[in-house]
Amino acid sequence: MDVGEEFNRKFREVGVAEFFRKNLQMLGYSGAIRSFTTIIHEFVTNALDACEEYGILPEIKIHIKDLGTKNLSKGNIKLKKLEERLEDAEANGSKAKVDKLKRQLEKLENEVGDAGGHFVVTIEDNGPGIPLEYVPKVFGSMLSGTKFHRYVQSRGQQGIGAVGAVLYSQMTTGKPTKIVTSTGKGKASVVFLRVDVERNRAKIIEESVIDSKDWQGTKIVAEFKGLLYRRGEQSPYEYLRRTAMANPHATITLYEPSKKRISWKRTSNISPPLPKEMKPHPLGLSADDLLAFGRKSRAKKLSGFLQADLSRVSSNKSKEVLKISKVEDKEPSKINHVEADRIIRAFRDMKLLSPSTEGMTPIEEKHLEKSLNKRLEAKFIKANTRRPSVYRGGIPFQVEVSVAYGGGAGRPTSDGRKMEIMRFANKSPLLFDTGACGISNAIRSVNWKNYNVSDFENAPLTVFVNLISPHIPYTSAGKQAVADDDDVVKEIRFAVMEAGRTLKRYISGMHREALKVKRRSMFLKYAPEVAGALGKISHKNPEGIENMLIGMIEKRIKLREDKEAIEELTKNGTTEKAAA
Amino acid sequence: MDVGEEFNRKFREVGVAEFFRKNLQMLGYSGAIRSFTTIIHEFVTNALDACEEYGILPEIKIHIKDLGTKNLSKGNIKLKKLEERLEDAEANGSKAKVDKLKRQLEKLENEVGDAGGHFVVTIEDNGPGIPLEYVPKVFGSMLSGTKFHRYVQSRGQQGIGAVGAVLYSQMTTGKPTKIVTSTGKGKASVVFLRVDVERNRAKIIEESVIDSKDWQGTKIVAEFKGLLYRRGEQSPYEYLRRTAMANPHATITLYEPSKKRISWKRTSNISPPLPKEMKPHPLGLSADDLLAFGRKSRAKKLSGFLQADLSRVSSNKSKEVLKISKVEDKEPSKINHVEADRIIRAFRDMKLLSPSTEGMTPIEEKHLEKSLNKRLEAKFIKANTRRPSVYRGGIPFQVEVSVAYGGGAGRPTSDGRKMEIMRFANKSPLLFDTGACGISNAIRSVNWKNYNVSDFENAPLTVFVNLISPHIPYTSAGKQAVADDDDVVKEIRFAVMEAGRTLKRYISGMHREALKVKRRSMFLKYAPEVAGALGKISHKNPEGIENMLIGMIEKRIKLREDKEAIEELTKNGTTEKAAA
Repeated sequence: MDVGEEFNRKFREVGVAEFFRKNLQMLGYSGAIRSFTTIIHEFVTNALDACEEYGILPEIKIHIKDLGTKNLSKGNIKLKKLEERLEDAEANGSKAKVDKLKRQLEKLENEVGDAGGHFVVTIEDNGPGIPLEYVPKVFGSMLSGTKFHRYVQSRGQQGIGAVGAVLYSQMTTGKPTKIVTSTGKGKASVVFLRVDVERNRAKIIEESVIDSKDWQGTKIVAEFKGLLYRRGEQSPYEYLRRTAMANPHATITLYEPSKKRISWKRTSNISPPLPKEMKPHPLGLSADDLLAFGRKSRAKKLSGFLQADLSRVSSNKSKEVLKISKVEDKEPSKINHVEADRIIRAFRDMKLLSPSTEGMTPIEEKHLEKSLNKRLEAKFIKANTRRPSVYRGGIPFQVEVSVAYGGGAGRPTSDGRKMEIMRFANKSPLLFDTGACGISNAIRSVNWKNYNVSDFENAPLTVFVNLISPHIPYTSAGKQAVADDDDVVKEIRFAVMEAGRTLKRYISGMHREALKVKRRSMFLKYAPEVAGALGKISHKNPEGIENMLIGMIEKRIKLREDKEAIEELTKNGTTEKAAA
Repeated sequence: MDVGEEFNRKFREVGVAEFFRKNLQMLGYSGAIRSFTTIIHEFVTNALDACEEYGILPEIKIHIKDLGTKNLSKGNIKLKKLEERLEDAEANGSKAKVDKLKRQLEKLENEVGDAGGHFVVTIEDNGPGIPLEYVPKVFGSMLSGTKFHRYVQSRGQQGIGAVGAVLYSQMTTGKPTKIVTSTGKGKASVVFLRVDVERNRAKIIEESVIDSKDWQGTKIVAEFKGLLYRRGEQSPYEYLRRTAMANPHATITLYEPSKKRISWKRTSNISPPLPKEMKPHPLGLSADDLLAFGRKSRAKKLSGFLQADLSRVSSNKSKEVLKISKVEDKEPSKINHVEADRIIRAFRDMKLLSPSTEGMTPIEEKHLEKSLNKRLEAKFIKANTRRPSVYRGGIPFQVEVSVAYGGGAGRPTSDGRKMEIMRFANKSPLLFDTGACGISNAIRSVNWKNYNVSDFENAPLTVFVNLISPHIPYTSAGKQAVADDDDVVKEIRFAVMEAGRTLKRYISGMHREALKVKRRSMFLKYAPEVAGALGKISHKNPEGIENMLIGMIEKRIKLREDKEAIEELTKNGTTEKAAA
């Protein structure tokens, strides 16, 4: 065989869409339930990001219609049983068994999904809309979008998600996806499109412009097979419920296949500040990053580039770093790797201000507390938004947590409520890969007994953590877990512990209240008897004596409680100092 | 803000190389050891595939040169300790603890890697070489190659791996990769190239043609930082050792950073048959697959396409399926999803031959036994290549296993040897994600006590499994674990159990031998005494009596053993039938 001829015959280039068509699990399409949640996630994050960029209070409607599901009843019974066993195992705590059951469950979900599960999903927002010329790119062309290149806190990033969902729809049903969108000028575009997998381009099936009056926004209608809809920890329902919690300015309405309508109404009418593009800090960069930025810079000189494109690099600092690193002040695209490496190392030896954190938009304590109050109806809620911080020396991040206790807090199970961890990254819920997540690890590493939570796993407790950053340190492409970065984990621990101290006072208050009720009822139980006896001896009216006795008891109990409360507060103050 | 203007300002398309530059963990670049193994894996699989396609007996040389590693000693001590703790935990079996230690270990490996680890890796093969015009594509352009489109049993598939390694080299060191290659016509090309990330194209730094006499092959020289070299379960060393086992026709030589040279010489001089392109079987396809094949087909009619492009579809079957599915015999690119779906469902109702399996090239029992004999120096080795089979109704696969016992079998630990599982897919070792792999699960699901292995985890036992298929059902993009597919798992179990039955006879033979020795020594111990006593009574020569006694004992023992052996064999026969 001639090698050249063989290469001519066999060599081919394939498109990125073709690659992902073969590797759908990379995009979150594995399992009938996870795939469903992935679809909802992709469209909802796009809607929220778009609204946020334009300061619009989001109204998002999700309709899920069941077009008929074969062989599901039998599978559903099996699923139900397996779920119960999983719950038991989780309660009794053997990780190996839990993992095994989870795998079984996922497998069964897949099988059930394979057997049918044909749905129409409609997602409508009141966002800025998409100009007609960009519709084919946004929905039909992978690796294109407005976010990949910008250092900004956003939910989506890669310009793959929405196209992936369109691809998954056409792969499972062959149907095009319908997009209706208006940028609010009285007209809306209606586009039916597919992904042309070979060319990574949209294939427009039908396109028209209609009158839309004053409607602005985007509506997507797509059909899918192989999905499974039911409520559960990793379901679209749970995903949306949590999205509503972390986005108090959004109203989200879900129409379930059963026709049940759930509306999570906004609890805040204030739109979060517009996300600002940030500049990367020198200490968060590798030499290769610096080269990549340099190639794209419009600055004429290296010193100008460092000053303009990086955070916390003044004109003086820029000159200083070139001096230390002994790199000539040439065109930024002309430096090589060795020079870039020298510059990065020189920055490490210099004094630089921490990265600017002004681009970060947390949910904020008051909004978070109000939102969780409404969603969870817990008896106690405390939110805590920490000040922004920095990891790996140069990447800004911010942590906010909330601890909710009693009432609707925690996860309902067959025998009462259990502790529940809710993880978020840039306000998007993370539902999968809990075990491998730095957020979960940080929460579990807290000694909850110090905060009067004697049995953490079985407490009626919700721990909510939202991690904010222009660069979330995900563990993998699935973007479902955060790496165990020391700085990040420490910050989450502190945030949780801070909220925990308020919880502690609440719980000990509850104990005190319970004790008070017990003491009073004990004394009062004997009051009539004692009053009767005293009445007989003193020949006075027993009712008057009883009232006097009750008055004395109440006064005595009050005094004692005040004393205890003062002691408790003093003790707490000391504990807090020691723990901080 | 005007939506159109905003889109104009922010919208960008990015290349696939740019995407993977941001998502290197998708390609296996996470952790200082795993990254090292990934690099070796990418170049070695390419070399083996290329040799196999041209019927060349591979000679692969890997040089690893340490250019200096900072701060490693301290980290190495910590690593060593953590490794020992992991080993303990693995022995004592708490999965949660093992997982935790593994995470700690991986994290530490990363840190150690970050601290230094600068290497030059040179990989040279005697393969067919690469025509000069294809060098930039093979090493500088992702998603291009000779394998993605072909339904053929091969190690690599996506045309990403080699480019990923070049990219990783330039990202960590800024250096171009050097490629020297000759297709054997007296000339060799020398190319220094980088990946132009923005354009997903090679950037040629230097190119020349030199005289190469009769040398044919490819040599790659690349520099990397952030790697960690040490032998271990997931190291380049272990990867190559196992590659040599599963590729007995290859000679692989590794020069370690310590200058130590390890050569795994070929144990077979027979090159495996050339891999054949297979046609997919109708029952292994989805409707969407059928559409994709239809678009690429050169056939004029649907009937012709089905017959030409699918396996086991004769002219009659092709007409029959169109009749049942009521699809018109039009151009293959003109069918829609509904029609494709009808065709696929009609195929399911028809009688079709199982997929052809002639394209599959197992290692084969005799080669595998010889290879493992040489590599493991075990006391017992039994290989078992099963006949090809089919999963998901239409995807051919084949399983071969080997069981090795005693001597060098198993994994050496501080307290003796432990059981070791070696997993392969198309003769490539799988070193990561053991816990989530269908192969491991199948092996562990065997009741090893039935095969006289009383303590499976602590037995001096190596279980080798090679899964062959044009479509390995990987669980994820990392391609390190095989899905728990029922058909595949069942087949692996059977293969292991079959080999296990021979092992059982060997182990019970060992027991018998031990018993024999024990019995004989017991009897013989008393023989001189008894002979002495008898000699005194009978006034005969004690030596003669002793000889007579020994003869009697030997004869008696022999008789007894024969009887036991017969019983054992009969019992085994019954067990085998029951188990089969």
